[in-house]
Amino acid sequence: MGQGKQILALNRFDADQANGLRAEVASLVKRRQATFGASSVLFYSEPIKMVRADGVWMYDSEGRRFLDVYNNVPSVGHCHPHVARAIAEQVGTLNIHTRYLYDNIHTYAERLLATFPERLSNVVFTCTGSESNDLALRVAKIATGGEGFIVTETAYHGNTSAVMDVSPSSYKSRVVPRHVRTVPAPLSPVSGEDVGQVFAASVKAAIADLESNGVKFAGFLVDSIFSSDGIYADPAGFLKAAVDVVHAAGGMFISDEVQPGFGRTGAMWGFERHGVEPDIVTMGKPMGNGFPMGGMVTRPDLLEPFCEGTGYFNTFGGNPVAAAAGLAVLDVIEGEGLIRNADEVGTYFRTGLRELSNRFPVIGDVRGAGLFTGLEFNDEETREPDTAMATFVINGMKERGVLIGAAGFYGNTLKIRPPLCFSRENADLFFDVLTDVLGEARN
Amino acid sequence: MGQGKQILALNRFDADQANGLRAEVASLVKRRQATFGASSVLFYSEPIKMVRADGVWMYDSEGRRFLDVYNNVPSVGHCHPHVARAIAEQVGTLNIHTRYLYDNIHTYAERLLATFPERLSNVVFTCTGSESNDLALRVAKIATGGEGFIVTETAYHGNTSAVMDVSPSSYKSRVVPRHVRTVPAPLSPVSGEDVGQVFAASVKAAIADLESNGVKFAGFLVDSIFSSDGIYADPAGFLKAAVDVVHAAGGMFISDEVQPGFGRTGAMWGFERHGVEPDIVTMGKPMGNGFPMGGMVTRPDLLEPFCEGTGYFNTFGGNPVAAAAGLAVLDVIEGEGLIRNADEVGTYFRTGLRELSNRFPVIGDVRGAGLFTGLEFNDEETREPDTAMATFVINGMKERGVLIGAAGFYGNTLKIRPPLCFSRENADLFFDVLTDVLGEARN
Repeated sequence: MGQGKQILALNRFDADQANGLRAEVASLVKRRQATFGASSVLFYSEPIKMVRADGVWMYDSEGRRFLDVYNNVPSVGHCHPHVARAIAEQVGTLNIHTRYLYDNIHTYAERLLATFPERLSNVVFTCTGSESNDLALRVAKIATGGEGFIVTETAYHGNTSAVMDVSPSSYKSRVVPRHVRTVPAPLSPVSGEDVGQVFAASVKAAIADLESNGVKFAGFLVDSIFSSDGIYADPAGFLKAAVDVVHAAGGMFISDEVQPGFGRTGAMWGFERHGVEPDIVTMGKPMGNGFPMGGMVTRPDLLEPFCEGTGYFNTFGGNPVAAAAGLAVLDVIEGEGLIRNADEVGTYFRTGLRELSNRFPVIGDVRGAGLFTGLEFNDEETREPDTAMATFVINGMKERGVLIGAAGFYGNTLKIRPPLCFSRENADLFFDVLTDVLGEARN
Repeated sequence: MGQGKQILALNRFDADQANGLRAEVASLVKRRQATFGASSVLFYSEPIKMVRADGVWMYDSEGRRFLDVYNNVPSVGHCHPHVARAIAEQVGTLNIHTRYLYDNIHTYAERLLATFPERLSNVVFTCTGSESNDLALRVAKIATGGEGFIVTETAYHGNTSAVMDVSPSSYKSRVVPRHVRTVPAPLSPVSGEDVGQVFAASVKAAIADLESNGVKFAGFLVDSIFSSDGIYADPAGFLKAAVDVVHAAGGMFISDEVQPGFGRTGAMWGFERHGVEPDIVTMGKPMGNGFPMGGMVTRPDLLEPFCEGTGYFNTFGGNPVAAAAGLAVLDVIEGEGLIRNADEVGTYFRTGLRELSNRFPVIGDVRGAGLFTGLEFNDEETREPDTAMATFVINGMKERGVLIGAAGFYGNTLKIRPPLCFSRENADLFFDVLTDVLGEARN
């Protein structure tokens, strides 16, 4: 998820431009177009037919092995055996909704909530990050009596009707709804201004603009690693000023942890790096390592008025299989020290990329936290965003067995977010392949 | 799902009224209240702690066995080994989004679409029925340029913001949004009028009311078995007149098959019984026998304009594990002849209930299709809805090891929808237990 029109175009399969596809791929593409129709979106000019995956590796139908540095859903490693076993065992034992009691959902709820600040003590389970954000918007509206939301200008928060309204990267027509205001991503300011102050000033102006148009402010919803905006992590703490502005205006701060959550940034939750306490936290993607599950965590004083006014029940949310998957994911994060690994290997990775930028000036900013890194390409002369180079690198690395994607308003930022078991050796392979591709680009 | 305020109250656990819970249950309830907070909803005055389930049976932590005649999600039987094996195998092999190619999703899409009228040839996979309906509303809006929807007055279609707007059973405040009109459920008319004509006239009036208030009509969204309204199935074909009215007005007919779909009504899809072709079909619940998955099926000419205007991507939707679960469910439906079983045992079941109504006049209408039966209780004298009797029966049957729920505006209708492998012997057990409970009610 998290890709708007600019970005998807980068490495999107285009049937009209497809020539010479292998027979097996061509046949599958044809079957896909017949069934998925206009909704079919595939990566790469020659799509990859995958057959299996484990750890950081994916394998295609020709037996080619790919290092996965793109997919953040199989976060503790593709097809992790501990998670797979937990799902397999539970799906043969009991799989039912939460209107009966069973043990593992309560154990899971307690272990999950123990990773949050004390006041965030209630959880509602859903099936997706989209459902979690859809619910969070309603909780914020009930809590504030407002309806206005502020998001970043290339944000993506999910696919329901209500969440699409607050996902500018999905506005194909770029019409911002009346109840939404966008603020620029927290870019590193050119002239040495304070990122946090600049960002907070934008939020303050957006609140004022909502209110002056008769829309009461309800909340500020951000992905705490700003994935779709191009990954903005530093300096840690920069979010605090904006959150203070939100709270001073009586709004809710919703931290969308669908992408940064579960250890990705070298902390359990992305908001931790900023020293802030959200009113509502949403999660999804890595929560079950690919099992469809999501959740919303909030304070009892916010959940109560919502539940009084609105019935909410999610059939599959919090079922015993989801609980088993979620518990197994927490086991692996803890047992394999993945948060520490994300921090350490992430730092090693960005250090190596910055060294590479000395040899290849087309590499601009290298930024991120833990195993979520943004790698910008800028024209060597003009320093303008070099989207073509990002596209070239994505395809060149794929040809050499490394999977990657792009993000950001201009699509010139590589979005690097491998499974959290990514090692220094994997990073070294990435450096070698990137060096090779950038060398080819020079020739 | 599918329960509004009236109905849930029937057999909802009330912590304030809970005395003498077993220690194990009391402890779990306490842990649940600490984590789920206000969102906790449990069945029964003494909630059941479940530990395992298979086929039509569920088992609690005391070793008590319950005949499940309530749960329609584990539709081919709780923890069916063929489905469980398929999930277990796939979750250890490959679990990724649909932007790469893989085989089983395309095989599944083809097998699923083969069960639909030829023009309904495109599918979009989601994770839940709610996501499917949320998407369907948008497809209908783009296709028609309208925004007005018509639903039945106790309908439930899901839990997203947009879908709650068209789910009157969830309006705790009973304020119908400006773009929504409700029509009475297609009750069997008292005076022998034609159900279909009465229903179509309501729809026609609702369209006119929308348009006279400046809201362009977009679509008519109904659960084709009218579950939450109280289960209305007969006479087969009654929907056709309403669908004709909708089409004549330029609107879309969206058939919500989340409850009736996948063989429940003795046909693969509920709309088949009515001889109508929907423009959009939505599905969820039984699709993966509990694996979180949903889908929307429509025509290419409707999907294309939607995809042109809106990016839609669902991270977990259509992943290989969902495809494996979905394929296994289709295997079981076909291999075990579950559609025929639903039809035959359903008929046997309703025949038996009607015989019982001779002995117990409190039993009113017995209606349904396949293994979806509504059993109404009415006061023996006044013939007014007897909600108290429904509550008494639900709790009495639970005490005797049979799980059941209620539906309908007054909550006086038992909602009977066991797994599709429900047998004549299971039906006989139901009759015996119901006889016992109704006998007790007399004393």
